[in-house]
Amino acid sequence: MSTDQRFDDWAHRLGYAFDGEIKIGGNYTPVVVDGHLAYVSGQVPRVGDTVVVTGRVGAEVSLEQAQRAAQVCAMRALALLRQQFGSLDRVGRILRITVFVQCTDAFTQHSEVADGASAVLSDVLGEAGRHTRTSVGVYQLPKNASVELDLIASMQA
Amino acid sequence: MSTDQRFDDWAHRLGYAFDGEIKIGGNYTPVVVDGHLAYVSGQVPRVGDTVVVTGRVGAEVSLEQAQRAAQVCAMRALALLRQQFGSLDRVGRILRITVFVQCTDAFTQHSEVADGASAVLSDVLGEAGRHTRTSVGVYQLPKNASVELDLIASMQA
Amino acid sequence: MSTDQRFDDWAHRLGYAFDGEIKIGGNYTPVVVDGHLAYVSGQVPRVGDTVVVTGRVGAEVSLEQAQRAAQVCAMRALALLRQQFGSLDRVGRILRITVFVQCTDAFTQHSEVADGASAVLSDVLGEAGRHTRTSVGVYQLPKNASVELDLIASMQA
Repeated sequence: MSTDQRFDDWAHRLGYAFDGEIKIGGNYTPVVVDGHLAYVSGQVPRVGDTVVVTGRVGAEVSLEQAQRAAQVCAMRALALLRQQFGSLDRVGRILRITVFVQCTDAFTQHSEVADGASAVLSDVLGEAGRHTRTSVGVYQLPKNASVELDLIASMQA
Repeated sequence: MSTDQRFDDWAHRLGYAFDGEIKIGGNYTPVVVDGHLAYVSGQVPRVGDTVVVTGRVGAEVSLEQAQRAAQVCAMRALALLRQQFGSLDRVGRILRITVFVQCTDAFTQHSEVADGASAVLSDVLGEAGRHTRTSVGVYQLPKNASVELDLIASMQA
Repeated sequence: MSTDQRFDDWAHRLGYAFDGEIKIGGNYTPVVVDGHLAYVSGQVPRVGDTVVVTGRVGAEVSLEQAQRAAQVCAMRALALLRQQFGSLDRVGRILRITVFVQCTDAFTQHSEVADGASAVLSDVLGEAGRHTRTSVGVYQLPKNASVELDLIASMQA
């Protein structure tokens, strides 16, 4: 299976389509390319007009729901790279992801939440999906999203 | 108008001068240049010795005040690039900004706050100011600042 | 003294060994190298299996303890670069560090906490350790760590 087929598989598994416009909520750009590097803006788990996982992880949002949120964020980031470059085969390496989790004062499983995103990247991209990662617990996120993720990728010609 | 003139216009509009020393509060460096990339340290809305917007957004700080804070942060980052490179004409592209907002547990308009910074970058730099962005809500910031912003820029010879 | 000797000095001073496996807590990679750049994942102050500084800075964790946590995080990041490249002499420049501090709602000395990390980098690496920095106060961190730090370094051949 190609990277793009594995992406489509994940989209099917999550029950969402990621092939339309990836809407963003402000006066900026979803992807900037500089040489062989692609910077992707912070993604919340938004599908169409709806943020599909909102609320505080450790309270009204479970670890499993937060992992799913992280998966949707990662898929949005990959969808943006696919739209920009035509195919995810162009991804040389995911260099870094940062995962922000809206959590309670006592929730400490941010790494486990981020594993949701890392699983998507590894499954879809294989070795190119092995990345560095920073996970932190924040106080709030845009539109009450439970998770936000940004990334930097190196691309191949 | 040149980028530098548009910068001066924004300074005038905000009512602050950004042409003196840009003070930082620790054992680090405001800008590091690596090849054609410039990394700028996290900027709080400090003018001279005073952080001009402090407190929690959504409580004692309004959205409008927070947007102004984000504008001052962006202006400081641009002032540092101008001091380092002589002119903002040297900026090829703002690749990424990250905007941290000190907010209440219920404030969810971090993107709207960050739009303050994005407006400065777009207005001053034009196409070179179109960037990727990540906005999150944090629990506190240095010196009780309401907003902190860092960025990475690509520079031209 | 060489950079590696100064690193060993700091390890001795802190009372920890950083020469074994640097364990990470998830499905990702501690270092990714892209050209001359090395991205290091977010490091909590973990030694072996134990996070040695946990809890909220400004409450049960003092500024001094938080600075020590930041020092351990920076040493872990350096240990990873040393393992990856054989010697810290290979570090050309620390381009950026981001320091996340788990703090109370009123704690505002994040820069002073981060100075702990900056001191390690400057002392061990000299001029190559002078970096840009972003420090913020977050709501929680993985494993209840008091501090988390990530970095980007440029490396020499």
